[in-house]
Amino acid sequence: MHIILLSGGSGKRLWPLSNEVRSKQFLKVLKNPQGESESMVQRVYRQIHEAELSATVTIASSCTQEESLRMQLGDEVNLVLEPERRDTFPAIALACTYLALEKKVTLDEVVVVLPVDVYAELDYFKTLKEMEKVVLSGDAEIALMGIEPTHPSEKFGYILPGVQKSSLVHSVKGFEEKPTITRATHLFEQGAYWNGGVFAFKLGYLVNNKDILPPFQSYSERYATYGLMKKTSFDYEVVSRCNSLAMVSYKGDWKDLGSWNVLTSVLESPSLGNSLIKEDQGNTHVINQLDIPVLALGTKNLVIAASYDGILVADLDHSSTLKEHAESLTKAPRYEEFLWGTSQVVDVPSGSKSRIRRLMISPNSQTKPLVNTQLLLHLVVIQGEGSVEIDSEINKIYKGEVVTISKGVTYSLISETELILLEVPIAD
Amino acid sequence: MHIILLSGGSGKRLWPLSNEVRSKQFLKVLKNPQGESESMVQRVYRQIHEAELSATVTIASSCTQEESLRMQLGDEVNLVLEPERRDTFPAIALACTYLALEKKVTLDEVVVVLPVDVYAELDYFKTLKEMEKVVLSGDAEIALMGIEPTHPSEKFGYILPGVQKSSLVHSVKGFEEKPTITRATHLFEQGAYWNGGVFAFKLGYLVNNKDILPPFQSYSERYATYGLMKKTSFDYEVVSRCNSLAMVSYKGDWKDLGSWNVLTSVLESPSLGNSLIKEDQGNTHVINQLDIPVLALGTKNLVIAASYDGILVADLDHSSTLKEHAESLTKAPRYEEFLWGTSQVVDVPSGSKSRIRRLMISPNSQTKPLVNTQLLLHLVVIQGEGSVEIDSEINKIYKGEVVTISKGVTYSLISETELILLEVPIAD
Repeated sequence: MHIILLSGGSGKRLWPLSNEVRSKQFLKVLKNPQGESESMVQRVYRQIHEAELSATVTIASSCTQEESLRMQLGDEVNLVLEPERRDTFPAIALACTYLALEKKVTLDEVVVVLPVDVYAELDYFKTLKEMEKVVLSGDAEIALMGIEPTHPSEKFGYILPGVQKSSLVHSVKGFEEKPTITRATHLFEQGAYWNGGVFAFKLGYLVNNKDILPPFQSYSERYATYGLMKKTSFDYEVVSRCNSLAMVSYKGDWKDLGSWNVLTSVLESPSLGNSLIKEDQGNTHVINQLDIPVLALGTKNLVIAASYDGILVADLDHSSTLKEHAESLTKAPRYEEFLWGTSQVVDVPSGSKSRIRRLMISPNSQTKPLVNTQLLLHLVVIQGEGSVEIDSEINKIYKGEVVTISKGVTYSLISETELILLEVPIAD
Repeated sequence: MHIILLSGGSGKRLWPLSNEVRSKQFLKVLKNPQGESESMVQRVYRQIHEAELSATVTIASSCTQEESLRMQLGDEVNLVLEPERRDTFPAIALACTYLALEKKVTLDEVVVVLPVDVYAELDYFKTLKEMEKVVLSGDAEIALMGIEPTHPSEKFGYILPGVQKSSLVHSVKGFEEKPTITRATHLFEQGAYWNGGVFAFKLGYLVNNKDILPPFQSYSERYATYGLMKKTSFDYEVVSRCNSLAMVSYKGDWKDLGSWNVLTSVLESPSLGNSLIKEDQGNTHVINQLDIPVLALGTKNLVIAASYDGILVADLDHSSTLKEHAESLTKAPRYEEFLWGTSQVVDVPSGSKSRIRRLMISPNSQTKPLVNTQLLLHLVVIQGEGSVEIDSEINKIYKGEVVTISKGVTYSLISETELILLEVPIAD
């Protein structure tokens, strides 16, 4: 089995913790069984291995997420990175082409596609095996996962099951997009399932099917012409046109961690970071990434999330509209994670154009080459030891030293111990 | 008439906007009739002048507030600064000694003492004139202001009026400390008044009365022995022992701006600073002094206050207990205002002891002499022009320059234009 994990998302629905460069799936707000922090993508990746599916895993993501994925999952994982963001159909097509032409996966092997931001039990992953069986048996060209609903919900699409073929497998009678609450109640009573956005099919069904995908001789050709592919969803482009569908049902915990409302419901502790919750009236959550304290006093049903990008205070029942409001607040991210360490904008003095950054470089690491576009750039070494490479010349740097970079000059920083620097640009 | 404005307060009840060096009375959250921002102390000072009382004004405050008072009220105002914080009796005694011995005010002139954090109409200040008349007429040695209550409240002390002497004046039958709500309802029905903490008396009643205050030959003698005076309130030490009291009543707007609950009720706009309030369920207030945005989404009856000292999210009905909770969060203030400008801690990198500050120095100003206690201190000039004085030697500094100060060296900064500097200490 070959699993394709879809790791997309614009990062606005969990503002201000997620942003353009740090999507929600990388937030380390969950806990693994050892009590250590883990992110959504780390959790799903761990569970896939725990479910012993003997599957390969390929992450279909955007090129902006490469460093985050490598940092969180290591160098072993296969990455298929979209050169630009489109929709699920092009992303899945690109990943399948990669499996067929680069990884030489044979066309009758089964591919299972699932989202990265799902919060589910191990049984969910074991259901993938059942989906593979249905496809391998030839009973259906595409198997879908149907989640047994616990209540009528207007937040999910529904699968209408047809004939029951075995304890877990039904044929598919039809689909419904996110319904009204009245319609959802009717669907719930009729025994419809939530559509989990999980698909299984033989690799050849997609890459050897001219009706769906024009054939390509090489992965690089597909990659180079990615920008020409239709922005359309896999549901619309492939599933809705397929006449041979089956649904494999799953019963158990299943949550889409895409909103504060849901995410806070799975957090083990009411607060993360420097915070104090007093006289709580119930269901107050604080997630604070700043170094100043947050005090929540007498609050109720609230999420308070603070990062260097902004501060959110939202009633949990209103968090679903966050995305549209956060759009207008999004500026260039102030905090970024790289393979070599982190960068944090600490001050933007009013009346000046200088963005002052603190760089923390992990021991024995090196930044990418950086270019100074300002009049001058002072690098103040606050702690640690290392070197600076300026125009191919390498010089040692020590605590307390100030290195000044002229305009247009390329530099790169190399650490021996952990290196903390303040980067102070002087504007024209 | 000589007005003594009591400007005390520990600054915890409006955390995180107020702190040890920046008390609530200096927060510029109110608006004057021209629509410009003003603080509590500026508002009261302006109203005293508008009421045309032909009074001198003396501010009784702590020495930690000198710069803030000078900045907000100018150089003309009389300041009497406690060398250490005690209670209202010593503070009023010190100010009266100052009036008698330094300002040579005659002992039969009337002194009126009032708090600085009151929010009232102009009639309130006109009532002070009535209080002066009562004292001058000899009808009472101390006149108190009784505020006509609008509802039973457990938050205030009460004055029980005796015989009515004129339309506004009663004798005083007794006092009650903050009552229970049942008792407050009874007092309200019986026609008791709120005790506004406003006192009028002849200067001689306090400074020429051995029973109350041991006599002193000079103000400096009183000042030098200030630390020996009893920590006790003027109510307890003077008013409760006086047999000749009158109450002058005031009817009109009157609020004690000491809690978020009350302060937010007088703000003209629901938000100050970089903020967005969406899907408000009623009575949401945001006061944001940070440069990152605050988004309030679907909230109700909430104050959100953010400063470089911390972030508060409080239900307005719970804000009265803020003081006790804020105590545990108070660290050295990160933002300070001086006569020469402002200082802002912008970063305290974890793993280092460096507090990195941004100094903004107003044009043509000079800092006090500062001593570098760290291993090294780099001053990076981000914008503007001026000079630095190091060990009595003055050198010009320009944008982009880095000045390095050695350990133990005294320096001071002098601006020509507005000067923005980053102060980067390197710890031992």
